[in-house]
Amino acid sequence: MTHLFRMAAFALLFSVSSLSLAEDTFTLRLAQTWGPNSPILGETVEHMAEMADTMSGGRLQIQIDASNKHKAPFGIFDLVRNGQYDMGHTASYYYKGTIPNAMFFTTVPFGMIAPEQYAWFYYGDGMELMQKVYEPYGLLSFPGGNTGNQMGGWFREEINSLDDLKGIKMRTPGFAGEVMSELGVAVTNIPPGELYSALERGTIDAVEWVGPALDFNMGFHQIAKYYYSGWQEPGAEVQFLVNQKTWNSLPGDLQEILRVAMRTAAYDMYIQSTHESGVAWDRMKEDYPDVTHKTFPPEVIEALRDATDKLLKEAAEKDELAKEIISSQREYLRQVRQWTNISDKAYLDSVAGE
Amino acid sequence: MTHLFRMAAFALLFSVSSLSLAEDTFTLRLAQTWGPNSPILGETVEHMAEMADTMSGGRLQIQIDASNKHKAPFGIFDLVRNGQYDMGHTASYYYKGTIPNAMFFTTVPFGMIAPEQYAWFYYGDGMELMQKVYEPYGLLSFPGGNTGNQMGGWFREEINSLDDLKGIKMRTPGFAGEVMSELGVAVTNIPPGELYSALERGTIDAVEWVGPALDFNMGFHQIAKYYYSGWQEPGAEVQFLVNQKTWNSLPGDLQEILRVAMRTAAYDMYIQSTHESGVAWDRMKEDYPDVTHKTFPPEVIEALRDATDKLLKEAAEKDELAKEIISSQREYLRQVRQWTNISDKAYLDSVAGE
Repeated sequence: MTHLFRMAAFALLFSVSSLSLAEDTFTLRLAQTWGPNSPILGETVEHMAEMADTMSGGRLQIQIDASNKHKAPFGIFDLVRNGQYDMGHTASYYYKGTIPNAMFFTTVPFGMIAPEQYAWFYYGDGMELMQKVYEPYGLLSFPGGNTGNQMGGWFREEINSLDDLKGIKMRTPGFAGEVMSELGVAVTNIPPGELYSALERGTIDAVEWVGPALDFNMGFHQIAKYYYSGWQEPGAEVQFLVNQKTWNSLPGDLQEILRVAMRTAAYDMYIQSTHESGVAWDRMKEDYPDVTHKTFPPEVIEALRDATDKLLKEAAEKDELAKEIISSQREYLRQVRQWTNISDKAYLDSVAGE
Repeated sequence: MTHLFRMAAFALLFSVSSLSLAEDTFTLRLAQTWGPNSPILGETVEHMAEMADTMSGGRLQIQIDASNKHKAPFGIFDLVRNGQYDMGHTASYYYKGTIPNAMFFTTVPFGMIAPEQYAWFYYGDGMELMQKVYEPYGLLSFPGGNTGNQMGGWFREEINSLDDLKGIKMRTPGFAGEVMSELGVAVTNIPPGELYSALERGTIDAVEWVGPALDFNMGFHQIAKYYYSGWQEPGAEVQFLVNQKTWNSLPGDLQEILRVAMRTAAYDMYIQSTHESGVAWDRMKEDYPDVTHKTFPPEVIEALRDATDKLLKEAAEKDELAKEIISSQREYLRQVRQWTNISDKAYLDSVAGE
């Protein structure tokens, strides 16, 4: 009996230790730029957390804090870097003040559309270059969802020439705002909650937001009737940030569960955006039949491109890594766009009469 | 001591049973249409199996048999339905003889491009309708990867009119072949291994395969110089089939691991195809500078569309579920294409001078 008892006790110790390894629960705290109940963007984070939970049998828990909790919507980079949070969901171009090279991983004016950019990330040099930018800060960075091609904005008046742009007041932030400034646009920054009334009262003449899916609830189409196609964010990718120490503390299976959950959630956000923009644009036109789609005339596109090239050239001259990223994106775009042009573009052109 | 022993023995029994639950390994056998070392298509299956393996900590094993093993490349549907295999990777339109309604879930001529179609699957009625088709056979069906927009084919001579198509001999299978027949093309079926020499010897005048990524190794560009944009498979999705009984036997965490691994692998295949077609098309043009991209003239596109509409109308009249699927796809396309046109298409048009 004594022998049996020792065996049982040994087995018990052994098995308890195995159990604790196999069943350790990891709870990661995530800070997102977005507020609570944020459509598409916030849904993507919840979707990721649910997949991780179910795939891990409950062993990987992601606790999500929205911006009303952590009060730092544009400080996610620091929160995750400092270890106050394990993870973040944000857009890398918000941090161009701190890490200028981060902005290239969201989108670049006149750059790649979503599938082209995913190809650059996953089958070109994108992931490696992005990691090169984030590694010094003890962070891992992953694509976190694409809005699809963003629209050029809602305009109260038609833009038929470069002159029509000069002096108009427009809300368009970031790099696109810098480019617009070069063309004489008076770029202003107004909090989201005040945009509708600013447009209504004529404080601004135009506003660029995202695309139909997220523009719909802002109501701009009720005031400004001209909806212009975009040039500035042809495939805006948000991102997941993970603290390197947190990542290292996870067992291999949970690392892979987290990686795949983030990757799937990101792709799904692109597809959800496609769906919801289709639905919203259809409804906008039905509710407000005078809403009209427009494209900027060639002379405007050309001027926007020249200004973009000038700013990118300056960025490349200032920083070696910026130069490497810009060159990689430009060469990749040259290659992949030829394919896009003979496949989807040629097909869409051939059936455009529909 | 006796009491302690009992406790230990009880704990041992309990913990061993927990361990065995937590660590049961499931090995699923998968039959794929593709041969061994198949680029992109076969890689997608391996990629899925590796993700499932790592995410499950080795508890979910997928054993892959290529067509040289099971000898039934176009019999995957039956192999999985009969339970000889747990899973399959194939294209649903191969089974239009047995289940005619399956073909709509691969692609439809003049239908949706890849992101539009994923939106229909995941945020429209696609998944539900697909399951309606497969459920009676005890099967679950999931998107399994997209080739991207397929090219219209390699032609030895230019096609400038409907007359130029009449009487030419072309390899183009399936629904597209039926449509081409309506236009007077002599559609032939030749085994893949003999296509190159058939084209070289003039046994055929044209051949439709996939796109640059998979066409490259076939070498058609060395013979036929005109590469036409497509109309027939704007976003061909292959699929995973899973036997319902196998699925039911898996614990919840492994079901979700399998579901997410398949979903990610499918998206990744679309992006890998985008990448590799960009690389291959660039190289084809460099190696053979006389290779020329062409689009069919409007009168050919119009005739192809009319013939497609006629065949789809016949299919809808014959079968209630076919009608439901065709209507759902048509209404979804009407909605989502308006968005594609004002976003990616308008953007690609505006920068096409590049």
